[in-house]
Amino acid sequence: MLSEEEHLVADAAAACVRTRFQDRIEDVFAEGHFPQDWIEVLAEAQYLGITASEAYGGMEASPLIYGLIMKALEAGDSGLRSFASVQNSLVNYPIERFGTEEQRREYLPDLVSGRRIGCFGLTEADHGSDPGSMATKAFETEGGYILNGSKMWITNGNLAHLSVIWAKLRGEIRGFIVPTDLPGFSRRPVPRKWSLRASDTAQLFLQDVELPKEALLPGSGGLKSALACLNKARFGIAWGVLGIVESMLDLALKYSSERRQFGRPLSSFQLQQQKLAELFSRYEQALFISLQTARLSSEDRDHYARISLIKRNNTALARESVHIAREILGAAGISSEYPVMRHMMNIESVYTYEGTHDIHTLILGRYLTGEDAFS
Amino acid sequence: MLSEEEHLVADAAAACVRTRFQDRIEDVFAEGHFPQDWIEVLAEAQYLGITASEAYGGMEASPLIYGLIMKALEAGDSGLRSFASVQNSLVNYPIERFGTEEQRREYLPDLVSGRRIGCFGLTEADHGSDPGSMATKAFETEGGYILNGSKMWITNGNLAHLSVIWAKLRGEIRGFIVPTDLPGFSRRPVPRKWSLRASDTAQLFLQDVELPKEALLPGSGGLKSALACLNKARFGIAWGVLGIVESMLDLALKYSSERRQFGRPLSSFQLQQQKLAELFSRYEQALFISLQTARLSSEDRDHYARISLIKRNNTALARESVHIAREILGAAGISSEYPVMRHMMNIESVYTYEGTHDIHTLILGRYLTGEDAFS
Amino acid sequence: MLSEEEHLVADAAAACVRTRFQDRIEDVFAEGHFPQDWIEVLAEAQYLGITASEAYGGMEASPLIYGLIMKALEAGDSGLRSFASVQNSLVNYPIERFGTEEQRREYLPDLVSGRRIGCFGLTEADHGSDPGSMATKAFETEGGYILNGSKMWITNGNLAHLSVIWAKLRGEIRGFIVPTDLPGFSRRPVPRKWSLRASDTAQLFLQDVELPKEALLPGSGGLKSALACLNKARFGIAWGVLGIVESMLDLALKYSSERRQFGRPLSSFQLQQQKLAELFSRYEQALFISLQTARLSSEDRDHYARISLIKRNNTALARESVHIAREILGAAGISSEYPVMRHMMNIESVYTYEGTHDIHTLILGRYLTGEDAFS
Amino acid sequence: MLSEEEHLVADAAAACVRTRFQDRIEDVFAEGHFPQDWIEVLAEAQYLGITASEAYGGMEASPLIYGLIMKALEAGDSGLRSFASVQNSLVNYPIERFGTEEQRREYLPDLVSGRRIGCFGLTEADHGSDPGSMATKAFETEGGYILNGSKMWITNGNLAHLSVIWAKLRGEIRGFIVPTDLPGFSRRPVPRKWSLRASDTAQLFLQDVELPKEALLPGSGGLKSALACLNKARFGIAWGVLGIVESMLDLALKYSSERRQFGRPLSSFQLQQQKLAELFSRYEQALFISLQTARLSSEDRDHYARISLIKRNNTALARESVHIAREILGAAGISSEYPVMRHMMNIESVYTYEGTHDIHTLILGRYLTGEDAFS
Repeated sequence: MLSEEEHLVADAAAACVRTRFQDRIEDVFAEGHFPQDWIEVLAEAQYLGITASEAYGGMEASPLIYGLIMKALEAGDSGLRSFASVQNSLVNYPIERFGTEEQRREYLPDLVSGRRIGCFGLTEADHGSDPGSMATKAFETEGGYILNGSKMWITNGNLAHLSVIWAKLRGEIRGFIVPTDLPGFSRRPVPRKWSLRASDTAQLFLQDVELPKEALLPGSGGLKSALACLNKARFGIAWGVLGIVESMLDLALKYSSERRQFGRPLSSFQLQQQKLAELFSRYEQALFISLQTARLSSEDRDHYARISLIKRNNTALARESVHIAREILGAAGISSEYPVMRHMMNIESVYTYEGTHDIHTLILGRYLTGEDAFS
Repeated sequence: MLSEEEHLVADAAAACVRTRFQDRIEDVFAEGHFPQDWIEVLAEAQYLGITASEAYGGMEASPLIYGLIMKALEAGDSGLRSFASVQNSLVNYPIERFGTEEQRREYLPDLVSGRRIGCFGLTEADHGSDPGSMATKAFETEGGYILNGSKMWITNGNLAHLSVIWAKLRGEIRGFIVPTDLPGFSRRPVPRKWSLRASDTAQLFLQDVELPKEALLPGSGGLKSALACLNKARFGIAWGVLGIVESMLDLALKYSSERRQFGRPLSSFQLQQQKLAELFSRYEQALFISLQTARLSSEDRDHYARISLIKRNNTALARESVHIAREILGAAGISSEYPVMRHMMNIESVYTYEGTHDIHTLILGRYLTGEDAFS
Repeated sequence: MLSEEEHLVADAAAACVRTRFQDRIEDVFAEGHFPQDWIEVLAEAQYLGITASEAYGGMEASPLIYGLIMKALEAGDSGLRSFASVQNSLVNYPIERFGTEEQRREYLPDLVSGRRIGCFGLTEADHGSDPGSMATKAFETEGGYILNGSKMWITNGNLAHLSVIWAKLRGEIRGFIVPTDLPGFSRRPVPRKWSLRASDTAQLFLQDVELPKEALLPGSGGLKSALACLNKARFGIAWGVLGIVESMLDLALKYSSERRQFGRPLSSFQLQQQKLAELFSRYEQALFISLQTARLSSEDRDHYARISLIKRNNTALARESVHIAREILGAAGISSEYPVMRHMMNIESVYTYEGTHDIHTLILGRYLTGEDAFS
Repeated sequence: MLSEEEHLVADAAAACVRTRFQDRIEDVFAEGHFPQDWIEVLAEAQYLGITASEAYGGMEASPLIYGLIMKALEAGDSGLRSFASVQNSLVNYPIERFGTEEQRREYLPDLVSGRRIGCFGLTEADHGSDPGSMATKAFETEGGYILNGSKMWITNGNLAHLSVIWAKLRGEIRGFIVPTDLPGFSRRPVPRKWSLRASDTAQLFLQDVELPKEALLPGSGGLKSALACLNKARFGIAWGVLGIVESMLDLALKYSSERRQFGRPLSSFQLQQQKLAELFSRYEQALFISLQTARLSSEDRDHYARISLIKRNNTALARESVHIAREILGAAGISSEYPVMRHMMNIESVYTYEGTHDIHTLILGRYLTGEDAFS
């Protein structure tokens, strides 16, 4: 099912999470921030440049390898995976795909090595599921552009050195590389979240931010460019949440075999075996459809509809899996001693972001029927 | 459906939660403790002696009024309701039912007025679903009893002045009133929980705790006495979680009518109306079966199987309701600005405690079939 | 919960089904028709005039008694209940409510006594969920009206002596009493159905059917008049399907206690007790919300939204209940020896007719939000 | 995803069903028998010897090709697929695997060519889920064996020329080839079924049936031999029901795009797109896990647990899919004009036979935990 190389990468990623992140995750989550030093660990492991070209220091890995790494990271924590998703799919990718050679050389080596962190500014507070109606605007000036607007729910936004901001320029959505230290650029953390607490989430404000001409990503044009980035990220999410399902299955098996009630291990009761069978089925189902998608992606034969399908499907299965595992753990499940509640809290963001479940329902509906039922 | 008095009580309880607790709940939950001053508010409202006899300062209210108050409190927070559940059903009730007139006079007036707080020590770490196999033991001495053992997941355990401890005396489970300041009695908070954070949860340790003869609740005998208390508490839980469902329905209606996407309120989309219809149906279904149970309880015609049914059923419906509301709120739902995640985190404990969902499945199964499938 | 009279009626209805219908139901269902002699049995039991006024020979019973009888009949077969639903709610009711005293005297005594059978012609082949867009038209002539159009899915349509036909007269929907033997009136059975096989379902065709002035139900005006009839019928359906749930619970308990595997009765296995607990919960939930609705109906305080809720909710619960019972019966469940498959096949029509599940979702959605999401 | 050969086989099988079976299926199902002339069509297409060795006239095809053909046949009707499943997996397979060269030569060419039909006698009326406790017994005589017992739910049992009967010989379960015309062998059709009506289902009775020594399948030994056959059949079922899911998706797409309500195609409504998205997701999920299993089977790396998983999983998904499609079709769905009700009725048998859903739950539970929770 996996090649030797793919196995090696998957094992290394799992080991990295186990040895470098696992011990601190619950504390980091409780504290509610993304630790600076984790950036170095991710960079060292090359996880900030997985799909970026080798020319810029990236791993230039296949979609499957990208997926396997996301899976290992999210088995750790969705916040950890989100960090890597953003850097890879939402910053590196648009710069490499829509940028000039100069832009690539300027930014990618630093991004890949973790010297600079990026974020992706598409969503706005009032336009969550309908980014095409965004209010952020760019005006052309003699020397460049002026941007005005605000962005919401921006992962890595407070940590970021640069942002890829999407704004309407003469009515067309375009991408701009915007350093976060420019005059007029401000940001603030989204207040207390009960999800993705180990992730940095920001609100960005752009007030008359002046950009040079070189800030524009010239290859970007229309919402479809932003959606191309989201597609990469959604693929990574679909793989990431497989890590949650797997960790829930592993935990449920371990706990139910060790915990005894009525003189027998929990694992010997029919009601618990039913839960375990459901966890196992969810994992297997989600895995093979994701593998197939990864193989098609390698051959550029993937389709946005299939990516919507696996983002929607796997996230829903992961959400159910966390609940099933939670039930097996009984009272113990609410404690931070086990990762169940943390995954339960995290998956709620993952269920919603990068296209809510319902939005992917309608993307699939439109794909299947040709009818637009969004509005 | 409700009498005028019942309406007044329900409205007053809702107003109490709104004016005295609501503003601080999210902060209290984030901090992770039960505030001392909330005890006074509860006592002042008579919510620490709802069903206790007037002779001891209680309200001597009907089961329905007890339920309506639990509903209002849990609409606020499950931790708030849990506090009141324990004092009423698990401390006042066993002392009044199984205690002597001296014990009632000694403890009930203080418990009802909040001058003393109690807790209920039945569950043990290794005997969660099978309390009959408890390890805590009482030995008769010349002057009284010596208790040894430990108890886990004890609500109000760190705050409590006294505990009702269940222990095996010559093989039979009996209840004892145990002050928490006795030598050999120690306790510690259950470490970081991601549920019922506004509730005090303790582990209790009893090492050669010496009790006078008067500590025994003489009317208690066998596990059935402890289960009689749980039945009262389960009834209160079933009503309490109705408050969650109602608050989720209210929030979902409000949010979906105010939030606009694609130029229309969310409430105008079929997919969101479906969620709202499901929330409404869950509320109505759970309400009327609970009302019926309350009416039967007033006439002493309730049955443990019906109480298991509504605890199991309402809690499961509430759990689903939180998830449905969560979906309607999209990204906003993960923020502490809305109570969705807090209720989602809380309901996990409620789903498990006082008999897990599966245990109530088997209670109902045994009731229906006469076959014991627990072990 | 029930008065003595209500108990008597319920018991009598159950006995009537058991002694007069039960033995033949499976054969009748297999053959695929509604037996003429069943009409006499229903009439004799007064079940064709349950809510009709005593003045015209009816029982003038309360909504609850109507519901209890529908429950008993549908425990037998949905086709049997459908027959009675139509006569009571869709023929007697509009004639009594919207008709003149002459019309009432002309038709009701015969309908109540089963000498004449009626049907209700609202639905059209192309306007199932949107009856307001019906194509059937009435034109005023000197002496009366001429009707043209066709109607689909008409229960009792081939057996009926008269029909209540809804047609647009100068753009407004009105009801007409149309004898089925008039020139231009033709009908044919809906070909092979795999549901409601013991029910007569017809397609009606009206080609220049001439009616006297007295055919118009003068009190009818607009779609709301037809919907008032549907509301009565939906109430009866909600109660009727309770009979399915109850019969599935009874059967599942009986079968699982008698059938042994692995040396033990099925009823002693956790996985089967879970199914039984779910059946029991569905029954209890659906029962008490229906009782409440019936009580409100007696006081004319019912609301169309609550009736939509119980039609939608109870039908969905009944559909699930049939599947759960089916699972408990294993291979035996597919045989006509047990009523499971028959109920499974029937419930599909009940799920769809008198407002599909989705249509009731949107009725509830509009009620809750004020937003119309039908079109 | 499929090789060219695999595509050709799949297309040919679909064409065969479309041109040779489709038109008559609904009538055959209504009549309730398996037509003799269908045997010839199946034989002609080589579908009665798909996996049998070429040496005996078989196609010697891969598991995937076997699966693809089962999928096409079950898209037609589960009864059609069941016929082929039995001949291939439950008759040809045990004879080839457990039989002598003489037995293979005697029977396989006739079975593969449809000149003889076989059936598989394992299940007994009182031992459905626990075949190891079977009551059928074989006694060794001087010249051979005498068999006594009865078998229930035997597909093709009335049509069969020979049966593979499993009986206990000195306490060990062994397989015997038993011609159905021997003295003491009698059979009768299972009376009226509301499922698999196009399939022949029999009860077999063996009263002192005398067999020669050559009747024993010498390679068979213990329940595991019978289970090896079931594993082949279960694999075919898992693939077969994919055909149901696909046909439901196709039908739902076609119907919803053609049927208009409220002036728009059904396919343009959010509630219907949600159903379509769910159908599509179920199909894709079930497909890829089944493909993976087929590939592993080709390399003899499949595992009974994975086959239990896909039998259980795909059948449950197919059952849900039929219900979803049914909802989209509204009233039309109950008519025999569409295959929905037929598939709904059929899937109930498929859900139960060859290991009920619950039995596969416990097989998976045992595989995952090492704990046997069957009894």
